[in-house]
Amino acid sequence: MIEPSYSISEYLKNNFGDTEKLPFDTVVKKYPKNFCLISPGEVEERINFLISGVVETKIVKTDGTERITEFFFPNQFFCSLSSLLTQNPTNIYMTCLTDCTIESISYKDFNKALEKSLIVNKLGRKIAEQSYLLRIKREKDMLTKTASERYVELMKNRPEVIQEISLSKIAKYLGIDPHSLSRIRANAFK
Amino acid sequence: MIEPSYSISEYLKNNFGDTEKLPFDTVVKKYPKNFCLISPGEVEERINFLISGVVETKIVKTDGTERITEFFFPNQFFCSLSSLLTQNPTNIYMTCLTDCTIESISYKDFNKALEKSLIVNKLGRKIAEQSYLLRIKREKDMLTKTASERYVELMKNRPEVIQEISLSKIAKYLGIDPHSLSRIRANAFK
Repeated sequence: MIEPSYSISEYLKNNFGDTEKLPFDTVVKKYPKNFCLISPGEVEERINFLISGVVETKIVKTDGTERITEFFFPNQFFCSLSSLLTQNPTNIYMTCLTDCTIESISYKDFNKALEKSLIVNKLGRKIAEQSYLLRIKREKDMLTKTASERYVELMKNRPEVIQEISLSKIAKYLGIDPHSLSRIRANAFK
Repeated sequence: MIEPSYSISEYLKNNFGDTEKLPFDTVVKKYPKNFCLISPGEVEERINFLISGVVETKIVKTDGTERITEFFFPNQFFCSLSSLLTQNPTNIYMTCLTDCTIESISYKDFNKALEKSLIVNKLGRKIAEQSYLLRIKREKDMLTKTASERYVELMKNRPEVIQEISLSKIAKYLGIDPHSLSRIRANAFK
């Protein structure tokens, strides 16, 4: 079950109950499956809102192994936040796992509007807060939950994962090998 | 060298160039050395600004070992941010390592003012952004830098550490035992 998708202006209305609009234009664009939105060495210049599709963020460790750090689903903001805030190069890959429709805000417009706009500051605060909480949750889950518990939670919160994302990617997200994931799935559905 | 300390209103002026004031009162209070500001199970209800002194945040792992996660110095905001944002109990200890003067904002006042106040949203955004960046930096440093490199960086950025914080605490922050820290110090100052 994919949630009905909406736009940034609807997100603002739902979250802040404001009728105030963003003081700049956004851009809505379609991207094909496997399109790489940003890769290591590039500087993040956009704040993205996922209208439809699934996006992954991934790091490649120094030993060459890949780790999927997050999946993003419709109605979520996503970007390489530390690169955006510091304007230093990112160390992540961000890739469309399906065809995606993405609405984007230019950081230049956003940053300029921070001086005077209440709604832009509210949105910037919300994005930073949610990114912080997501990070803390992931760290805590990795330390305190088994791969099996994390799999069951992912399925519960995002049942659409199984339709949209390959098992090898789910295994990379859970930090286990695909065979272990097969065992976990067999047990979870007993 | 301890930086000259200032207040939240001066911080706002320096960071946002605003003359707009916070739409609520803050409380300035002195705390003695070793005073515990928050401990696991409590819910964070304040946003703190350190006017003078040093504060540590610490977690106790399930195996009983302690890990110091951060030191805070004058002119920094600090609180248990995930507890503040979710209003769920914290899992950290936050303790004054020296006598401290702390200016505090009540989260209730802060949260209420978020609806209409530009300066409160700017401040909330800044605190969340800085907390996010600090977290990312610590994670990255733990993965990519040796304890020796992290010690040298800490001394460079915060030379006052050595006067204010015991070596056993610095070792707990670096995640090493005190003997290893003695060796690192001997080599660093050769």
